[in-house]
Amino acid sequence: MLDSLFRPQKVAVIGASTKELSIGNRVIKNLIDFGFKGEVYPINPKADEVRGLKAYKSILDCPENIDVVHMVIPAKFVPQAVEDCGQKGVKNIIINSGGFSETGSEGEAIEEDFLARAKKYGIRVFGPNCQGIINSDPTIRAYCNFTFTKPDPGFISIVALSGGVAEVIHQGFSAMGVGTRIYASNGNACDVTIPEIIRYLGDDEGTRVIVTYVEGLRDPQNFLEVTQAVAAKKPVLAMKAGRTMEGAKAAASHTGGLAKEDIATEIIFKKAGVLTFMDEGELIQAAAAFATQPIPKGNRVGIITNTGGPAVIATDVLVGAGLTLPPLSEKTEAFLKEKLHPAASVNNPVDVLATAPAEHYRACMDAMMEDENFDCVFVNFVTPFFVDNESIAREIVAVSNQQKNPIVCNLMTDRRQWTEVVKILQDGGVPCFSLPGEAARAMTALFRYRGIIDREIGAVKTFADVDKTKGQEIIGNAKAAGRSNIGASQVYEILSGYKIPVAEWRIVSSTAEAEKAAAEIGYPVVVKADAASIVHKSDMGGVAVNLQSADDVRNTVQLMEKNLSAEDLRFFVQKYLPGGLELIMGAKAEEGLGHIIMFGLGGIYVEIMKDVVFNLTPVTSTEAKEMLASIRGVSLLRGVRGQKGVDQARLIEIIQRLSQLVSDLPDIQEMDLNPLMAFEDSVYVVDARISIKS
Amino acid sequence: MLDSLFRPQKVAVIGASTKELSIGNRVIKNLIDFGFKGEVYPINPKADEVRGLKAYKSILDCPENIDVVHMVIPAKFVPQAVEDCGQKGVKNIIINSGGFSETGSEGEAIEEDFLARAKKYGIRVFGPNCQGIINSDPTIRAYCNFTFTKPDPGFISIVALSGGVAEVIHQGFSAMGVGTRIYASNGNACDVTIPEIIRYLGDDEGTRVIVTYVEGLRDPQNFLEVTQAVAAKKPVLAMKAGRTMEGAKAAASHTGGLAKEDIATEIIFKKAGVLTFMDEGELIQAAAAFATQPIPKGNRVGIITNTGGPAVIATDVLVGAGLTLPPLSEKTEAFLKEKLHPAASVNNPVDVLATAPAEHYRACMDAMMEDENFDCVFVNFVTPFFVDNESIAREIVAVSNQQKNPIVCNLMTDRRQWTEVVKILQDGGVPCFSLPGEAARAMTALFRYRGIIDREIGAVKTFADVDKTKGQEIIGNAKAAGRSNIGASQVYEILSGYKIPVAEWRIVSSTAEAEKAAAEIGYPVVVKADAASIVHKSDMGGVAVNLQSADDVRNTVQLMEKNLSAEDLRFFVQKYLPGGLELIMGAKAEEGLGHIIMFGLGGIYVEIMKDVVFNLTPVTSTEAKEMLASIRGVSLLRGVRGQKGVDQARLIEIIQRLSQLVSDLPDIQEMDLNPLMAFEDSVYVVDARISIKS
Repeated sequence: MLDSLFRPQKVAVIGASTKELSIGNRVIKNLIDFGFKGEVYPINPKADEVRGLKAYKSILDCPENIDVVHMVIPAKFVPQAVEDCGQKGVKNIIINSGGFSETGSEGEAIEEDFLARAKKYGIRVFGPNCQGIINSDPTIRAYCNFTFTKPDPGFISIVALSGGVAEVIHQGFSAMGVGTRIYASNGNACDVTIPEIIRYLGDDEGTRVIVTYVEGLRDPQNFLEVTQAVAAKKPVLAMKAGRTMEGAKAAASHTGGLAKEDIATEIIFKKAGVLTFMDEGELIQAAAAFATQPIPKGNRVGIITNTGGPAVIATDVLVGAGLTLPPLSEKTEAFLKEKLHPAASVNNPVDVLATAPAEHYRACMDAMMEDENFDCVFVNFVTPFFVDNESIAREIVAVSNQQKNPIVCNLMTDRRQWTEVVKILQDGGVPCFSLPGEAARAMTALFRYRGIIDREIGAVKTFADVDKTKGQEIIGNAKAAGRSNIGASQVYEILSGYKIPVAEWRIVSSTAEAEKAAAEIGYPVVVKADAASIVHKSDMGGVAVNLQSADDVRNTVQLMEKNLSAEDLRFFVQKYLPGGLELIMGAKAEEGLGHIIMFGLGGIYVEIMKDVVFNLTPVTSTEAKEMLASIRGVSLLRGVRGQKGVDQARLIEIIQRLSQLVSDLPDIQEMDLNPLMAFEDSVYVVDARISIKS
Repeated sequence: MLDSLFRPQKVAVIGASTKELSIGNRVIKNLIDFGFKGEVYPINPKADEVRGLKAYKSILDCPENIDVVHMVIPAKFVPQAVEDCGQKGVKNIIINSGGFSETGSEGEAIEEDFLARAKKYGIRVFGPNCQGIINSDPTIRAYCNFTFTKPDPGFISIVALSGGVAEVIHQGFSAMGVGTRIYASNGNACDVTIPEIIRYLGDDEGTRVIVTYVEGLRDPQNFLEVTQAVAAKKPVLAMKAGRTMEGAKAAASHTGGLAKEDIATEIIFKKAGVLTFMDEGELIQAAAAFATQPIPKGNRVGIITNTGGPAVIATDVLVGAGLTLPPLSEKTEAFLKEKLHPAASVNNPVDVLATAPAEHYRACMDAMMEDENFDCVFVNFVTPFFVDNESIAREIVAVSNQQKNPIVCNLMTDRRQWTEVVKILQDGGVPCFSLPGEAARAMTALFRYRGIIDREIGAVKTFADVDKTKGQEIIGNAKAAGRSNIGASQVYEILSGYKIPVAEWRIVSSTAEAEKAAAEIGYPVVVKADAASIVHKSDMGGVAVNLQSADDVRNTVQLMEKNLSAEDLRFFVQKYLPGGLELIMGAKAEEGLGHIIMFGLGGIYVEIMKDVVFNLTPVTSTEAKEMLASIRGVSLLRGVRGQKGVDQARLIEIIQRLSQLVSDLPDIQEMDLNPLMAFEDSVYVVDARISIKS
């Protein structure tokens, strides 16, 4: 439990300073200014007091039961200070100072040193090289942080390694007049981790929505498990930066990590049910909606507006994101025709007209909240000078407070003139935006989370009919022999062991054997040369398709024998399967996780259109189904323009079997089933490769 | 010239009211409060004064040379009031009142009536059913508008029919502390049109950037011509709403128009060189950058930051939009290593560290402005309490004022605390944003406009070797006969007349003729049944491909004769062309414009991947080239994975010939070349259809 960290009673500051513009002074100022409910003990060997508080020479001189010690001292002094804290029975240390693992090996050694000491005493360390924490809970008011944005109490908690972005998000809420609950930015995160904090926030009743920013995950498996559990209870909103290689480089440069392309994080977010955002502004606006609004039951929006164009913009955004604008029920229509101005447009959007008084808004909101046709209400509200806008704002607040269905408001005004209207809406907890697109996107985020809580991922199916031992043996032998690739026939054996259907094949060494194999398999066949030295078979004339007869097979094998002089030359004879839909599946080991499973359209689609989707092992049948449904070319699977669809049930099963295969055989580094040929009632792997971890 | 409208000296208000919360009072208040430099004449038959100004009983009693009359009176009184204005020699009338064509036929009649009277006297009418205009030029200060957002003087002009969205955009600038120049929202736009205003703003020296919002274009050809000319001189930024069918319905409901899907507007924007936005927030932010910054010479950004994560976000956005982050030149690197903190990260992004003073920023900005590696500078600036942030802001302003290369600033702060820093940057004309993504997207907009001014659309090529008369004859005959489709053989004739290569074909009526034709063309061939009653040939067994011999042809024709009993049954025998890349071209007449030309990947690509692009006639060779380059599957045209590319020069020529064809034959409603088969050194149309306007 991180309660003593996030809900401290007694805070000491080692490195407390009398210098106004120093962090050791600012931390104390922040605690005082924010109205910390506990005690603050400045530690300063030379001063009698700091900012009016009695200072202590050493932590050892302080009163007992210190919950949190801030350390704002040079890195080299930290280990001894930690030792002192241990003596004193301190529970948590926030190390604001830098100069540790982020700076290189010397700093890393210091970090290891103080961490070992902390562990010895059971002290939890937050940071180092971090901003710290804030808890705006009115009974706590802990501003254990050196930054400057003072939050109002609220329901959004923010957690991130990167203090820069966490603070930008924090400022975003502040600028919107939206409060925050807990703020935690833990820099190097040598002890208290992001998943640990997310788990804590998941249990924190005051936190209704969790916002995080990542540039990469330290312990992806742990992050996945924790966020999956938390996201089922309350929304977890995340943004990943470093999407581009240049962005990854910039991230590596400020974290001291290695730049690498990273698709795993987005896949983890998806699997965990984390709502991901590409844009920090959109994330901030969505969080503001989650902070006070219930989750809509469905995707049906009613729009109320007093001006035309902005409702059009909102409609585009909402509909583009999968929401719908159903018509008003007959009852609502009749009711509003009576209540509103005669010239009002009683459709969806309802245009109440600029002259509409508060009663018109209220009638309209009430009707939409009652109307079974709607799951949420969007209010577009420009503030004409000739109506009582404050009353309108109060009605919106009243309806929002009912917490029946979610409501968002696009308030179009000059915020410097209509301060009271803004204040009423903000204080009333109405998610209040300045642009129709912003409000609409926040509404779509609420709807996206409905999809997450309704999602039934289902259990992982374990197929009992597989031959795991065979696979272990083949891969074990390859590893023992120092090989990084598995021979083609053995790849097929592994697949067959997992009942993943492979186009019928034989491996042969002579023309006579090839003819015999072809006769057994049945024409037409494909012949492929196989030898360790032949990597790009097609380019070297080592592949011949659609061979129709024994003559064709014989001539082909002879030609390959002539042209491809390899000592270990053998030949695959395989059933030729024209006319199917070319698909691709793959698996790739991901550090700290299992494998990423890929599925998509094959052939030129995969190269040109990049129409592939990903998930993580273990893949359930629901997830496999979602994978099929989420490729752009899904209609090819379902059948289009007279063409028949393919055997989707079989594909879903193969994805799960592939997931089980790589989970059973974790030494597989990368695996391609490319292509798979899919038909109306069957699917066959036509070519496959496996590489193993070195 | 609209000078007397936008730069009025004398403004009269017909319908001036003594009631505080009426529009007839507010218009006068706004003129006074905004500091109008001219004279205001309230017209009120009963009052002696309105808001302290002498009131006149009638416009006829006013002084001479009235530039602008506001009409804030019920619709039915407007025609007579216009008549009076004509008597008085009034130059312009802004009709704020509604009740005209937007309400139905009765209002439409009134609109026609007053407009005829206005034209008789040479009066220009702005509106009706509109907000009006604002000109913040310090020598004018005309707030001829009943809204409430008072702009600071600035360089951005806003024009839109929809007052709701124009005002939202206006509020957006105001909230950013960015001024506006001219604001014009003309509602029903019965006389003064949007293109006319855009042309005026194009000539207005005080306007550096024009922002518009549309839900559809009244006179698309005029809009295209005007904005094309203006966008070459100064940036025109636009947003189109009503993209979704539901959005289009919402738009129709508030404008009284018809809901229809509209792809033409985006195509017009592109052809005109208008920068289009999908999001009003992004448009607002981009305009703020254009207002004060020069256009970058290229796409190379240097980033300066004092915090890590936000620079990563900015990098992702910039790189994702096609900008690059080149390394520092050796000279810059050496210089900054000397000037900055030893721990600063001297790469791109340069991390000057949170403790960096103003001199470090200045050194860095100067170096990047001098460094030939960079075309623009992005400053990420969080305001630590321990540095002199105001000095940093002043240095950013100083560099921005040099107008060497563009600079944008992401200011990460609590704007309520650091008011002076915000003010310095805003007053200094630095485009100043609150989020890294926003600042980055504004920068990418500047870069996009570079692409527009550098673009050489080239002249329209007119091919002299075409047979226009033949086409006119065929279409004229079809029209005369009341047919809406052109028979296949005639379609091929028209194409051949425009030297658009068609796979060799014959039309025949018997097996004997078919065999003869096939022999002439050369095997393999395709045979297609042709009769007026046979629309879906493939579905009815009316198409047979890859016929290899006379026997095949005979059997096929006999079978079709047996199965398809049509009196006018004939057969196409056509060269079969396997192995090419299947493409599609098309043309579609667009009301008020010429034709939209389509190009894309054919077959399942067009249906599943919708990989098609559009342009408008006349299409130049540069535009045709851009069309090829902008499909997602462009690598298929260029050749991929050992496959050869196709004859792109020929495709570019065919697009231009198609453009000329439909321009020469404007009665063509729709035309499909589907498929075209493209090979390394040739392209053939394999099937084509033409429908004509009814």
